[in-house]
Amino acid sequence: MTEPNSLIDPREFQARIEALVGAGEFDQVFQLIETLPDDDRPLLLSRLGTELHQALLSAPDPRAAAELLHSLPEAQAIELLDDIPASVAADLLEELPQNEQADLVGELSQPVAAAILLEMDDPSAASRIRSLAAYEDDQAGGIMHGEFVAVTQDESVGQVIEYLRANAGTFNDYDVQYVYVTDRARRLRGVLRLRDLLLAEATRPVRELMIADPFSVTDRTDLNDLHDIFLEHDFLGIPVVGASGELTGVVGRAAVEEALGDRTADDFLKTQGIIREELRTMPLVVRSRRRLAWLSINIGLNVVAASVIAFYQETLSQVIALAVFLPIISDMSGCSGNQAVAVSMRELSLGLVDPRELLRVLWKEASVGLINGVVLGLLIALVAMLWQGNAWLGLVVGGAMMLNTLIAVSLGGCLPLAMRRFGMDPALASGPILTTVTDMCGFLLVLSFASAAIERLV
Amino acid sequence: MTEPNSLIDPREFQARIEALVGAGEFDQVFQLIETLPDDDRPLLLSRLGTELHQALLSAPDPRAAAELLHSLPEAQAIELLDDIPASVAADLLEELPQNEQADLVGELSQPVAAAILLEMDDPSAASRIRSLAAYEDDQAGGIMHGEFVAVTQDESVGQVIEYLRANAGTFNDYDVQYVYVTDRARRLRGVLRLRDLLLAEATRPVRELMIADPFSVTDRTDLNDLHDIFLEHDFLGIPVVGASGELTGVVGRAAVEEALGDRTADDFLKTQGIIREELRTMPLVVRSRRRLAWLSINIGLNVVAASVIAFYQETLSQVIALAVFLPIISDMSGCSGNQAVAVSMRELSLGLVDPRELLRVLWKEASVGLINGVVLGLLIALVAMLWQGNAWLGLVVGGAMMLNTLIAVSLGGCLPLAMRRFGMDPALASGPILTTVTDMCGFLLVLSFASAAIERLV
Repeated sequence: MTEPNSLIDPREFQARIEALVGAGEFDQVFQLIETLPDDDRPLLLSRLGTELHQALLSAPDPRAAAELLHSLPEAQAIELLDDIPASVAADLLEELPQNEQADLVGELSQPVAAAILLEMDDPSAASRIRSLAAYEDDQAGGIMHGEFVAVTQDESVGQVIEYLRANAGTFNDYDVQYVYVTDRARRLRGVLRLRDLLLAEATRPVRELMIADPFSVTDRTDLNDLHDIFLEHDFLGIPVVGASGELTGVVGRAAVEEALGDRTADDFLKTQGIIREELRTMPLVVRSRRRLAWLSINIGLNVVAASVIAFYQETLSQVIALAVFLPIISDMSGCSGNQAVAVSMRELSLGLVDPRELLRVLWKEASVGLINGVVLGLLIALVAMLWQGNAWLGLVVGGAMMLNTLIAVSLGGCLPLAMRRFGMDPALASGPILTTVTDMCGFLLVLSFASAAIERLV
Repeated sequence: MTEPNSLIDPREFQARIEALVGAGEFDQVFQLIETLPDDDRPLLLSRLGTELHQALLSAPDPRAAAELLHSLPEAQAIELLDDIPASVAADLLEELPQNEQADLVGELSQPVAAAILLEMDDPSAASRIRSLAAYEDDQAGGIMHGEFVAVTQDESVGQVIEYLRANAGTFNDYDVQYVYVTDRARRLRGVLRLRDLLLAEATRPVRELMIADPFSVTDRTDLNDLHDIFLEHDFLGIPVVGASGELTGVVGRAAVEEALGDRTADDFLKTQGIIREELRTMPLVVRSRRRLAWLSINIGLNVVAASVIAFYQETLSQVIALAVFLPIISDMSGCSGNQAVAVSMRELSLGLVDPRELLRVLWKEASVGLINGVVLGLLIALVAMLWQGNAWLGLVVGGAMMLNTLIAVSLGGCLPLAMRRFGMDPALASGPILTTVTDMCGFLLVLSFASAAIERLV
């Protein structure tokens, strides 16, 4: 990541757009946007502010407005669609590809989505979008696109080329990689590559030329499986069929990679306590409230964990030096455990571990936890001994650190698998569960060891 | 992510492969691998163990062995290439596409890479791979592929089709989306879409048909910029030109999405203390050592931060209840600060913030930090008061929590921008710097407030 070399000040850009909108010069606004450098565009457009966004989306030319909508971060686009009249939103959406329409509609609240779909000019397109929006983001149906070229198997190469020529205007907007061949019931029968068409004689029937019984997936195929398929095969796109074998869409390699990247990014944000995507252009109260929801759970868990300390006030008051080591033990077991969580989440997403392999992961992590626990335990024991000149304090603190690292690493490795197995989201809850358990264990270990050895410590 | 439905036991699969390798039946091994379900393949292949991997990679048929190498996680493939003789590694690599060869060679240690390149049959291919391997993973040169179809601008449509037909065998392996048109010095002059060729008359010169002065990027174009370009334009691939305008490769949409996803995944691992990718198939000592490198830095920082507590032992011994709140303050400022770090990293990667906008982010975060600090401060003050029945303890602990949340959130938001600006990796160091500073501040705030109010607390 290099530093973007933006020369345009966001406020200045906003002022220019504001002046043009005030004068009703929407054409000039969209021309100006068109000429922005590609790498300045996301920042500048996202900063225009809600009022200007609303004004631009209601501009006379829905094409240009849709282009703007497409360039905004999705979270911002959703908010805007929520705010503008349903009829305006419907006009805008109709200018986008169906899969993007479905993505946005799927993120809107139920009543807003229903109102927008009602306003659409073409009821059959609206019903298609409704069914696309019902798919999950990690299913083939949720990432496929519906803009493909299909012909029936009885046609000849010449007829297909004629068909492509006649519809060149429409197909220009498509990513045409393959021509799909179906029977009359729209069931997928074969695939033609454009280059095969290019090299074949016009009179040959496509039935002879096509790759018959082509590889396909169903609309419910999982994102991980799609990734494995693209890893294994050189396809650019895979046809998606519905329950009765009818061709319903095409899922492209880039769309799968993009969906995986989005999921990784979402997981990352979730582990850090950002549960719903946040942009700094959002209102302060929304940003604060979303973060607080997560923080207030964590403060509760923290109080529970730290309450262990309260039971050992007697010990603590006799050996006040222990208070220095409690936060260290708590923090370090978080670090050690989160490493194991991260490795498990990575292996799960790469399909390198099965959620049922808890014992294998436990074994693999316990051995790392033991070694690292011994090293960290020795380090902290050394610190304690050098500082207080008491070998027993080193033994107490070092022993607790060793055992707690072993616990944290073993638990951290297993938690994501266990959560996946029970249908929970490992990104969301692994961290808080891990730190609560290891904090409690850590405090308990240090303070109970200290109580047991109290005569050597005072 | 759904649970994979693996029916094949990894040990059983390993035993079957072992028996076949023992009998020298390599063909059967590769046939068996070929028939694995796509979603079981990564797990089963990665678990075969180093000995079997080495035996298979040295199999008589380098094509099949290369296929296996391609299916393994990259970190595992690198280890294996490191272990097998350079001549065997060279034979294997030569079966892979050049960009994959370059990716692997770029990850190997310098002497191993040099030895393998020396063993390659074609010195010009070796030199090309050496230059590809020198690109960073986040540059166009590092993700482009070199398998494209190029013709000169003087040829006719018929000649181009003839050329494609004559080389159909080679081009079959390529993702042919576009035919690139160059002048005699190999400088890029235009682009032909396959469908345009399909629909044009054979006698027309490509010069008339091509999109002249096509969109291109240089080999040094940054990954973020590539992403912005693909977001803005409907291209499937973009030609990459070198310093003097010569066509050197093509970067595809899917490759950009994949590289972005990889970077997000790497960033995620780094923030959790996994600096170099770890697989549980790696030797224990490697896994343990890599994690320890990170942990030992953190334990040092933790000791420094906690040493603040040592200066206030007098205060602590008088109000031992404070020891319960120290780990809570430390943990919660980590949580609050990491939320802000995550939002900044996300906005940076989406190009929604410029690293120079420190003041804007400081303002946006300080306001969230203030609100959330007040709420968390009130919550923890309530806990302290209810527990100890002392309003002054609530004031001390709550006030410290409030101020420290404000500090943590403000610092967390700004750190990634500052690190990016000074060319450091925000994923790597934001977390440790954040927690060290906020731990110190938190301990200092609680304990100095307590010292000031000591007469009200005892």
